[in-house]
Amino acid sequence: MAEEIISGKLAGDKVLLGPKAMPELYNQGYFGRPTGQGLELSLVEAAYLLDRSRVCVLSASDDMELDFQALFQISSSLEKGFEFRYVVYKDLRERGYIVQPGRPDFRVYPRGGHPGKSPAEFYVLVISERTPLSLKEVLQPVRVAGQMRKKLMLAIVDEESDITFYEAREKSMAGQMEVAQAGGVATLLEDRVVLWDESASKRFHEHGFYGQPVGGRLQLSLVESAYLLERELVRLSDRSGAPLNFDSFRNKARMIEQDFDLKYQVYKDLRDRNLVVKTGFKFGSHFRVYKKVGGLESVPHSEYLVHAIPQDYIFHLQAVSRAVRLAHSVRKQMVFAYPEGEVKYLEIRRLRP
Amino acid sequence: MAEEIISGKLAGDKVLLGPKAMPELYNQGYFGRPTGQGLELSLVEAAYLLDRSRVCVLSASDDMELDFQALFQISSSLEKGFEFRYVVYKDLRERGYIVQPGRPDFRVYPRGGHPGKSPAEFYVLVISERTPLSLKEVLQPVRVAGQMRKKLMLAIVDEESDITFYEAREKSMAGQMEVAQAGGVATLLEDRVVLWDESASKRFHEHGFYGQPVGGRLQLSLVESAYLLERELVRLSDRSGAPLNFDSFRNKARMIEQDFDLKYQVYKDLRDRNLVVKTGFKFGSHFRVYKKVGGLESVPHSEYLVHAIPQDYIFHLQAVSRAVRLAHSVRKQMVFAYPEGEVKYLEIRRLRP
Repeated sequence: MAEEIISGKLAGDKVLLGPKAMPELYNQGYFGRPTGQGLELSLVEAAYLLDRSRVCVLSASDDMELDFQALFQISSSLEKGFEFRYVVYKDLRERGYIVQPGRPDFRVYPRGGHPGKSPAEFYVLVISERTPLSLKEVLQPVRVAGQMRKKLMLAIVDEESDITFYEAREKSMAGQMEVAQAGGVATLLEDRVVLWDESASKRFHEHGFYGQPVGGRLQLSLVESAYLLERELVRLSDRSGAPLNFDSFRNKARMIEQDFDLKYQVYKDLRDRNLVVKTGFKFGSHFRVYKKVGGLESVPHSEYLVHAIPQDYIFHLQAVSRAVRLAHSVRKQMVFAYPEGEVKYLEIRRLRP
Repeated sequence: MAEEIISGKLAGDKVLLGPKAMPELYNQGYFGRPTGQGLELSLVEAAYLLDRSRVCVLSASDDMELDFQALFQISSSLEKGFEFRYVVYKDLRERGYIVQPGRPDFRVYPRGGHPGKSPAEFYVLVISERTPLSLKEVLQPVRVAGQMRKKLMLAIVDEESDITFYEAREKSMAGQMEVAQAGGVATLLEDRVVLWDESASKRFHEHGFYGQPVGGRLQLSLVESAYLLERELVRLSDRSGAPLNFDSFRNKARMIEQDFDLKYQVYKDLRDRNLVVKTGFKFGSHFRVYKKVGGLESVPHSEYLVHAIPQDYIFHLQAVSRAVRLAHSVRKQMVFAYPEGEVKYLEIRRLRP
């Protein structure tokens, strides 16, 4: 039996189909929502089915049949972001997923799953590459999804309508590095700290992977120095030999590095969680993070790139794309750290649905 | 014969050595500048040689011998950026290069080369990761180096004193893609353009690699649409069917995309140079660029990532590091495009000296 073209009528931002649609479209593909009298399609679903000649759509006013171009232009006027949702819906359907409209944009069922058989696996948020996205706008659906035991999928549509899929999720961070032993006196030079004592330099570098050895000495970064100072593991002085306590050092560090407080808060939290934290400069992030560094003969691969962001951070999706792609190219996870009372962590990773 | 420790005296920001230094230090390693009476070392050279016990340095006032820590602290007070220059000098020397102080910071001779034998290969600019760097500050030494037939090396020192080396150079861009044939009417929807005509869609996509096919239609980006419109290769209308000329379309595009003018100027210049230009969103840059796309059966590898920047752009070195690393991880060259009357191109690539 050839597939029958089912006729529907545009009504507001829905297309209403008669009872025949139930066996043809709902039972075979889970398009639309059953209403009792028939089936209700969203505009995205209607445009998709019209393009595949599964339905025809009549205009609300004069019962004229709308072609794809006409329905697309009407839908694009009625719904902000229609074009983005359409390309994402089409892409996921063509990959064989059952997709239903939902919050924030779609629900996607696991491969082989459908309504009534299995719960949805993903909530999908569709975003244009151009739209700046605040941290809050990501966290809200991440948390809703988490509460419903779903994953949050970000579907980012670029200017050429190509889609990149990400998963965003809250992450707990923990390592296995024990605390370093105290000892040594260091000097704050122009914008970094040198630990002069050779045996202390060796110890901090070998047990904790602090600093960079330069000759027999150890150059420490500002966050490393602040941490060792706050933990009372080193003593510090300025170039004239005057001792610096944690508060006076922090004041100087703030002058040198604009976002010192944010970076240090994250550095401290990660070190306190027994992770080994080093600069991520070569990877364009604040930190690269190891779960454990045993000895310097075999420094392991670092697991994470961590970038510290403020609570009111606005993601520019081009930069997110770059950060995640780079992290994956060096087999690391990309994690954004933000203060919310304590420090919290958001992982964004590429999905290949 | 054991190496003799040669004694020198701190004088301002130089260390002065007697005539014995000529055979010991200049002829074997090209340290310092011959003065007639002896040899003059920069502070960086003096600290390096002191650390290797090749010289001892007496203070200017009381002829007391300075240990490494004392000389380092004095030098760091006398010269801004001393610590950065020291780690870069030490690194290059330990790799076996002959390095001399010069403009902007050092001159480096090619492997096996030295003063009097061969010209220097690189001028070196030493920069801290933390220092924002304006486009102008890069272009000036790039051009000086170019005029002297040298290359410009950027040595970027991160907060842990690890160094990343880059070469920056002006680049000319050219491709081999012929011009597309005219035809078709397109509509501006919310923030992108759809070309409805199937045969025109096919033609533009196959000859020029324009747009993204969605069904039989072609979605065009704003810059693609503007280019095809300005070249009179398509006609364009808004959702109501009213025709849009280039100026009115450009005004709308500016509302949708903040940096549209800059992006379009670069896009147009690249297309006019017979290159094929597509979005670089997945790589975190404005464009990915192909020299030629023959047919769609075998879309080649794109050679360049191009990012459009204004003339007063400030580079943040962490972002440069990320962009260049990402470009290289996908075997592309990272090119920054900026308007200076016409559009000009600056390539930044990683060096592994």
